[in-house]
Amino acid sequence: MRPPTTRPFAESLINPHAIAIVGASDNPKKTTARPQQFLQRAGYRGNAYFINPTRDTVQGAKAWPTLSSLPEVPEHVYIMTGAEAAIAAVRECAHLGVPVATVLSAGFAEDGPVGQDREDRLRAAAAEGPTRVIGPSSLGVVNPRTGVMLTGNAAFGEPNLPAGGVFVASQSGSVIGSLLSRALGRGIGFAGLVSTGGEADLSLGSLCEAMIADPGVTSFALFLESLRHAEDLAAFARAAAEAGKPVAVYKLGRSDEAAALAVSHTGALAGEDSEADAFFRACGFARIYNFESLVEAPALLERIPATAPTTPRVGVITTTGGGAAIMVDQLALRGLNIVGPSANLVARMAEAEVIIPHSLIADLGLDGARHDIVTNALTLMQDSGEFDVIVFVIGSSARLNPELAVQAIAERGNHAVPIVASALPEAPEAAALLNSSGVPAFRTPESCADVVAAAFSRRPTTVGDTAQFAANAAAPAQTLDEQASAALLGRLGVTFPESVAVSVQELEDVSISVEFPAVVKVLSDQLPHKSDVGGVVLNVADITGVREAARTIVRNVAAQRSAVTVDRVLVQQMARKGIAEALIGYRVSRDVGPMVVLSTGGVLAEIFADTSVRLAPVTIDVAHEMIREVKGLAVITGYRGLPEGDVDALASTIVAMSRLAVTNTEVLEAEINPVSIGAKGCGVLALDALVSTSVSESVDTRRADAALAHR
Amino acid sequence: MRPPTTRPFAESLINPHAIAIVGASDNPKKTTARPQQFLQRAGYRGNAYFINPTRDTVQGAKAWPTLSSLPEVPEHVYIMTGAEAAIAAVRECAHLGVPVATVLSAGFAEDGPVGQDREDRLRAAAAEGPTRVIGPSSLGVVNPRTGVMLTGNAAFGEPNLPAGGVFVASQSGSVIGSLLSRALGRGIGFAGLVSTGGEADLSLGSLCEAMIADPGVTSFALFLESLRHAEDLAAFARAAAEAGKPVAVYKLGRSDEAAALAVSHTGALAGEDSEADAFFRACGFARIYNFESLVEAPALLERIPATAPTTPRVGVITTTGGGAAIMVDQLALRGLNIVGPSANLVARMAEAEVIIPHSLIADLGLDGARHDIVTNALTLMQDSGEFDVIVFVIGSSARLNPELAVQAIAERGNHAVPIVASALPEAPEAAALLNSSGVPAFRTPESCADVVAAAFSRRPTTVGDTAQFAANAAAPAQTLDEQASAALLGRLGVTFPESVAVSVQELEDVSISVEFPAVVKVLSDQLPHKSDVGGVVLNVADITGVREAARTIVRNVAAQRSAVTVDRVLVQQMARKGIAEALIGYRVSRDVGPMVVLSTGGVLAEIFADTSVRLAPVTIDVAHEMIREVKGLAVITGYRGLPEGDVDALASTIVAMSRLAVTNTEVLEAEINPVSIGAKGCGVLALDALVSTSVSESVDTRRADAALAHR
Repeated sequence: MRPPTTRPFAESLINPHAIAIVGASDNPKKTTARPQQFLQRAGYRGNAYFINPTRDTVQGAKAWPTLSSLPEVPEHVYIMTGAEAAIAAVRECAHLGVPVATVLSAGFAEDGPVGQDREDRLRAAAAEGPTRVIGPSSLGVVNPRTGVMLTGNAAFGEPNLPAGGVFVASQSGSVIGSLLSRALGRGIGFAGLVSTGGEADLSLGSLCEAMIADPGVTSFALFLESLRHAEDLAAFARAAAEAGKPVAVYKLGRSDEAAALAVSHTGALAGEDSEADAFFRACGFARIYNFESLVEAPALLERIPATAPTTPRVGVITTTGGGAAIMVDQLALRGLNIVGPSANLVARMAEAEVIIPHSLIADLGLDGARHDIVTNALTLMQDSGEFDVIVFVIGSSARLNPELAVQAIAERGNHAVPIVASALPEAPEAAALLNSSGVPAFRTPESCADVVAAAFSRRPTTVGDTAQFAANAAAPAQTLDEQASAALLGRLGVTFPESVAVSVQELEDVSISVEFPAVVKVLSDQLPHKSDVGGVVLNVADITGVREAARTIVRNVAAQRSAVTVDRVLVQQMARKGIAEALIGYRVSRDVGPMVVLSTGGVLAEIFADTSVRLAPVTIDVAHEMIREVKGLAVITGYRGLPEGDVDALASTIVAMSRLAVTNTEVLEAEINPVSIGAKGCGVLALDALVSTSVSESVDTRRADAALAHR
Repeated sequence: MRPPTTRPFAESLINPHAIAIVGASDNPKKTTARPQQFLQRAGYRGNAYFINPTRDTVQGAKAWPTLSSLPEVPEHVYIMTGAEAAIAAVRECAHLGVPVATVLSAGFAEDGPVGQDREDRLRAAAAEGPTRVIGPSSLGVVNPRTGVMLTGNAAFGEPNLPAGGVFVASQSGSVIGSLLSRALGRGIGFAGLVSTGGEADLSLGSLCEAMIADPGVTSFALFLESLRHAEDLAAFARAAAEAGKPVAVYKLGRSDEAAALAVSHTGALAGEDSEADAFFRACGFARIYNFESLVEAPALLERIPATAPTTPRVGVITTTGGGAAIMVDQLALRGLNIVGPSANLVARMAEAEVIIPHSLIADLGLDGARHDIVTNALTLMQDSGEFDVIVFVIGSSARLNPELAVQAIAERGNHAVPIVASALPEAPEAAALLNSSGVPAFRTPESCADVVAAAFSRRPTTVGDTAQFAANAAAPAQTLDEQASAALLGRLGVTFPESVAVSVQELEDVSISVEFPAVVKVLSDQLPHKSDVGGVVLNVADITGVREAARTIVRNVAAQRSAVTVDRVLVQQMARKGIAEALIGYRVSRDVGPMVVLSTGGVLAEIFADTSVRLAPVTIDVAHEMIREVKGLAVITGYRGLPEGDVDALASTIVAMSRLAVTNTEVLEAEINPVSIGAKGCGVLALDALVSTSVSESVDTRRADAALAHR
């Protein structure tokens, strides 16, 4: 038996020279017979071995009884047996030194405790050697470039699988075949497609990371069901950014509503989907919202760097006014900035026989059927410096005479200013010509606008290592009282009104130094929602009022929460009413680590899901971006001539909160709400604070804060 | 010459027995040569005449010098000449008694005054006889059922144009060919396609109305650029509803921002697109948001009556879990209510060998490839009474083995509970089989969810005759002062706080009978925005305060608006703060007539475009529907256990405002803002009112109200 390969892991994964199918069937109708058929059809030129201990031949090829009986150690083994046999096969792979085993078999973690035990044994079996496992429940690994067809998925029975630069990885198995079918005949080709299955060993992120070094891979398209193994996705994101290979991602679960009622509002505000959004943004991924766009997007992403302007100047040119109007609608609905050609450019175009009306759209009309006119128009627009991207909406000629406008567009695909094309009619041949010429082509105006918007909202990768937070996030939480919370956040730079904590007992005898009017609030780590238990008295005028308020609070809490004894109250100077209020939250997600959330607070913000979420920490620029994203905060940024708020102070406070991620890693959740925003130059004040920490650390923190309070 | 036809107009329009092409070319490459080619290819069996005075033959057929020289009067003439020649040809049609002339020629209203004059002459020429005109700038009229091809649009050069029941009418010419191409090979067929062009004579609405009687037309698909000739659309809507023929509509301009700064906020809140929404809803049209959905929608609309439940129970069944998850996401994002099969149904399915996990989705898994399993599953689901519609998400078998699941689905298409299908892969053959079997099939999950949502949000047609308001809406407006406004609205049933109008001069001497605290407001039809000019003083405690306030107001207005003399103020009892506020507006749109608008008022409602708009008048049920639609009003309908507001009183007030449409047709615009909403049972109070009327009527109204005020 020839020894195991020493080729790079990625090669064994996607381009193995020798493969084996364990559980290959002789019955051509069976799923387990398909890989053999597919390999033959695809012209795989390596050595393929078929393991079936009960037969001499399978579908005319020699059947081998075991992996160990093969004349060489295969680089990649596809296992199509039952679950227990799969574990045995993986063990055999490990002992032989097989680099990659992909497991189709089901019956693992998804099947409860018995399956979980199997999955543990599967992992252990692989760990007996160098074998890395894809799956279980993986619908396979396909490489159209070299005819590697480790799959029983009928969808790969297509002739002429299109090879290209896009590497597809999907947590949902059936999706890879469907994406392939939607790309067929449209000039979109794949460097590989992998169904990652249960991710018992190799996660989707690690698999993709391994593929970055493959020079044939130019971009990635990910289909995600969840954010599991986010730390691997983050590592992949960093490496992909370094290699300059863009990533498009479609994720399920946009409609999921965060169910758990958190101690603070931050949890509800940053639901699972906004968490995913923040994570993808930090990863520098382009998030895609139309399913089919996932195969159409990579071509454009390869043309738009992550450093491209966030408000690109989008030019629209067309041979069909009606079609262009549809596109303008779709682009504008996604907030894109459509600019018409300048008067100067219109004049220069006219000199080149391109006669267009002065309008938002360069409408060539019937002249758009002339190759020379389209060439002149595009050349002048691309060279004008007036556009960051040009969207060409092609009319009926796209379908009927692709040699006219479409050919001329295709010839302009290499310019630094990319052209994006969308035909109003069904026009697969035009798409094929355009996509293969560097002009990303889209089947629907909705998909086109979706991807253009996604491409320009992609930002340079900033995601760090999120794994360190997972353990903390899973720990039980301990809530700090308002004083301790404010002390902790105050040290980071959050400003609170002047306040003093006093013992209820001492209060009757001592005076306090706080400016009146004041607010008196119960101080207890047992009562995070103070107002709900009658624990807040506003507008207290003097020390007598404070004493009275304290007695009221003690009485209220005793009536509503008899188990809690009120020892202390916080007397806080009433802040002057600001011009608006905000909520800044911080929490550590189990999936993606620390996040910072901004909203206007209040019921309407919740109803409209009007929040901005980022992975923490954030820079001051990102904080300003967040303020612009929260629509309700338009009232402090000059909307309709309203007086401006202290946006800079608010941004600094967001940054301060977000720095919990680096300065106070024991903090699981924090919230200042409301944050009263003063007029420009007058600062912001956090009127209340709530922090919860992992239990192990919280005791120390409380002690330190208590000490601070008594200074 | 045989005399003109006496067949019904619709027959001459879409199924003429004799046609003529004016301006037919002998050069086969020219647009004007195409109708002849298309007619031949499509096998048109009537008499076709080609008019070209400069030749004996065109493309091998006899060329006739004029329409008058023909042996019979054609039923439908297509005119492809220049503008002036087209006018002459239309006149010839009129004199001969041709029922329909469709005009391709450009150079009419879109070309400024000269073109407008031509258009007037075109209309006048037609009026010299019975001829009705389609166009100008019409890309034509096509009937795939009988091979009528009155078009030079290259898109209709396709072989085998699909005949069916959908009648397409488009204000944008290029769109009809593109829609056709997107339907090809997918089992979607057309009863006709018309490009309505400039609508100089026949509007899109009248054309469609004429087609309702055609028994071959089963549904309509409209592509609109604007709401021009809305009164014809309304008439068509009523007739289509009566005939039970559903209408899908796609309209451009969703992104347009209403630019004009109206006297009231209502104008800005009810921008052009929400106006269109309200109009389509009243028409009973289903509005479609994905371009391609326009050809996919009619099949489903034909299955869902306008009286269907507004919150249908949507069942989802699948052979691909991942694909179904995408669909669930898309359906849920559109607010659709997805219900899983009951435990009882799951058990009954198990008895029929359909083994599915108890979940939101009936996931057949690999069994979905078996015809008998799919049949059993669908039969049980359709008969269960648990679903109003069933969405089937088909996996790879849709593309590869349509004889399996797809065939079984197609066989269940006739059941009262409709099935809707969407394949995850590209699967045109499956779509063809399904669509032709009564199972509407969609290419993308987004389109499928879009149309399911649109089908169930369609309501019975309520639109009235809007034409009567157009003249008024165009008249100059006269603003009434607050007292006159409130008097007018009070008579309709809107409740205002107790108030009294007093002359500033008299005020120093007389007393007034109003409960304090009160608000003092300037009373002038010159000052609709009272606060902006310092014309409002709040919290006035007694008559001395009122006098002081009046003096302040006189001073403020004198300083800011020296041209306005303040004679009177309104002293209004301060209302107790309600639990929320609303804005109710009314305006007469030039396009669609009277509308009523509800929002929470304020900046956030504007930022979030959180409004509900309907054509006026509305019923109490619709008023309640509007309250549910305004998200910000969730705070009065039990959101998060907040105290409920007087929803009934608010609904009654909406109805009252909307009845301006029947009681006070001279009113062009009215607004009560804020409307203070009391707790349940405590009523609502309009704290301010602003009415503007068409000038001719307003004088009388003011006089009447002034008289009323002095009673």
